[in-house]
Amino acid sequence: MIFDFNKLTNINDENTKIGDFQDLEHIDGLSISSTSADLYRAKRDDLVLFYFRDGANYASVYTKSKIISENIKWNQKIKSKKIKCILINTRNANAFTGKKGFKALKILADELSELLTNKQKEDETSPQKVKTDEILFACTGTIGETFPTSKIKSTLPELIDKIKYTQNKYIWMKAAMGILTTDTKPKLAMEECLIGKTKVKIYGVAKGSGMIFPNMATTLGFIFTDASLSSRILDKLLKKNIEDTFNAISVDGDTSTNDMVSIFSTNKSNNPEIKSIHDKKLIDFNRSLNNVLLNLAKRIASDGEGASKYVEVKVMNCKSKEHAKKIAFSIANSPLVKTAITGEDPNWGRIIMAIGKSDIKINLKKLSIKFGEHKIIEKGLLIKDYAEEIVAEYMKKKNIDITIEIGTGKEYFKVYTMDLTKKYIEINSDYRT
Amino acid sequence: MIFDFNKLTNINDENTKIGDFQDLEHIDGLSISSTSADLYRAKRDDLVLFYFRDGANYASVYTKSKIISENIKWNQKIKSKKIKCILINTRNANAFTGKKGFKALKILADELSELLTNKQKEDETSPQKVKTDEILFACTGTIGETFPTSKIKSTLPELIDKIKYTQNKYIWMKAAMGILTTDTKPKLAMEECLIGKTKVKIYGVAKGSGMIFPNMATTLGFIFTDASLSSRILDKLLKKNIEDTFNAISVDGDTSTNDMVSIFSTNKSNNPEIKSIHDKKLIDFNRSLNNVLLNLAKRIASDGEGASKYVEVKVMNCKSKEHAKKIAFSIANSPLVKTAITGEDPNWGRIIMAIGKSDIKINLKKLSIKFGEHKIIEKGLLIKDYAEEIVAEYMKKKNIDITIEIGTGKEYFKVYTMDLTKKYIEINSDYRT
Repeated sequence: MIFDFNKLTNINDENTKIGDFQDLEHIDGLSISSTSADLYRAKRDDLVLFYFRDGANYASVYTKSKIISENIKWNQKIKSKKIKCILINTRNANAFTGKKGFKALKILADELSELLTNKQKEDETSPQKVKTDEILFACTGTIGETFPTSKIKSTLPELIDKIKYTQNKYIWMKAAMGILTTDTKPKLAMEECLIGKTKVKIYGVAKGSGMIFPNMATTLGFIFTDASLSSRILDKLLKKNIEDTFNAISVDGDTSTNDMVSIFSTNKSNNPEIKSIHDKKLIDFNRSLNNVLLNLAKRIASDGEGASKYVEVKVMNCKSKEHAKKIAFSIANSPLVKTAITGEDPNWGRIIMAIGKSDIKINLKKLSIKFGEHKIIEKGLLIKDYAEEIVAEYMKKKNIDITIEIGTGKEYFKVYTMDLTKKYIEINSDYRT
Repeated sequence: MIFDFNKLTNINDENTKIGDFQDLEHIDGLSISSTSADLYRAKRDDLVLFYFRDGANYASVYTKSKIISENIKWNQKIKSKKIKCILINTRNANAFTGKKGFKALKILADELSELLTNKQKEDETSPQKVKTDEILFACTGTIGETFPTSKIKSTLPELIDKIKYTQNKYIWMKAAMGILTTDTKPKLAMEECLIGKTKVKIYGVAKGSGMIFPNMATTLGFIFTDASLSSRILDKLLKKNIEDTFNAISVDGDTSTNDMVSIFSTNKSNNPEIKSIHDKKLIDFNRSLNNVLLNLAKRIASDGEGASKYVEVKVMNCKSKEHAKKIAFSIANSPLVKTAITGEDPNWGRIIMAIGKSDIKINLKKLSIKFGEHKIIEKGLLIKDYAEEIVAEYMKKKNIDITIEIGTGKEYFKVYTMDLTKKYIEINSDYRT
């Protein structure tokens, strides 16, 4: 697959270093393989394997939907603290496929177990058995269609054959593209940081587009680090950092059955042992992990289905974070606000509407609204020299910032979203045909 | 204004008699006037007055938004139990217009009071003073723009001049059209019923389109009856019947600052006095009021911005009505469900998604889904002989019914909505230009 690097997203944001595309290189202990199981009519990679030859510690967060896919059920049953691989397929969500869908995963796990155990025997000096209890699955695609078990199963030998022990940016790009569905751009991010005096890497790939709401929807995110960190510490780090990153994005307010974000540590770094999340040696890692997650989250929001503009909604000076979040999502999810942005219309009346419907008590006299750096409402009043034509000019930009001050406290929340376009309708009214 | 009756909505629904357009005639004690205050660039009626020369008992329900328009504030301050008129203007919502917006209403009320008091002196044998405390306002349109006080004030003499003491279908139609904004069709409904042995009329007009969610959004609804009913009884009747009618419609999940539905009784009928809402003589009136409200609500949903299809979502056999409502709205408000319907795609996977994200615990084994009369999921399984092409054929219809059985109880809720089209984006990204 040839990929044009020049066509990549280019969000200018100094703070989070989203900027230009980053090149991911090698992470010790991780191997990658991508191929096609012919799940789509047009030929494309639809099967990606992340393989940890010596195992990896890991942690995951899953969709909060009350109806979950079979692979999420599978993952939740895994008891092993170390895992050996995760297999990702697109095109079929393996959701609402019942016992058959779950059994399909058992068939694939058996096959993977056998193939990878054989590979261990060939490649390793002290080969280990790869157990089915050490295999995770991520699925994304259409709900309710029969899971293509045999197509995937028969492709696994080829997938194992293609495993690369050393990665470079092309291998990462191929994998990042292999997990996409209606996304238009692959999503990769990286940071390097210190644990004590040891330099470690944090790499990540993700897919998004459609059904992206807090609690992550059809979002898949996979974070890899060579750091030595226990599954317990990974779990705490992930849960702590997911709230203001992946759970702060919204495309259309819908939520899927299949979302998951996982973090894997290959433990190849000789960093000092970390026993508590409060260990000061984790500060840099924690911040860098947040950067990687936020970077991926922003790429997902800016590539939301049919997006023509990338929008950040910041709600400040609230009584509680929960209030700020509720108001921010009420604005970000409002079709009327989204379409005003599509139309490059500084229609702050719709922002007022969205704040009002969020069900949080508002003191109008303390409310302020800014579009970019342009003040519109200050302490409940339209500013005296308000010049709509200047704000209308601002609305023509690709990236729109909306800042709300509620004035009742000190808490804030920021949501990452996009506009609502005819293209969204086109994609979603024509998804299966 | 010439109106083509042939272009009216035609929803076939035997049960609620929405059917063809109904002709509204005269209601004793009510007078109507419509004219243009030049609030739009193109000439159209934008000012409508409903005038009760002998006063009317009344009750209202208002938006639940935490930010409300100045006219809602005005109405909530009215202490008089009888009112003399309600003035409706379009184009400007008088929301977020502050003290100036409220003062504007005082100016208009003063003027109306004087003009109508003079009219009483001219027309009535025992003229009464029309007090400002007996005047209601309904506003709809853009939020945050300066309220066109002087334009409206200078048009009031003409409006009063045009008052018709006897109505016919043309006068009703003109009024129904005068209160519209982006609606494409006027919304009128009527019923005749008995209180005891006395025949009474229930007439209604409404506007909708955009920002229609439960709690009514930019919806305005005005119900008129010649029955003799106290404001207390009207209030109970309205609150009781609004839940499964106006509060069961959804266009885009947005809610406005201006919604109101009011009911007025002119007390011209000699029906027996009603002291309790439980009086059996009210059964027919109660049912007919529900019909009028539901008829208007359906017309609003089917004329939602850019709607190409009218959709009813019925969630049955739930533990509680609240659960059923939450699931039904989760489906009805989902952009992914809406766009699938636009695409005439029987994508039941998205229904599953929307049920899952509603946050209500589901027993999949009891879940059933029907599109029209076509069973798709029965007790958690895709039916054996499921033929997608037959259901795809059904999806080509203008009116789509989605029925969900949850199987945990006996409660149900039905939501009235529409699909999400490119036209919606067009209307809303271009609303003010």
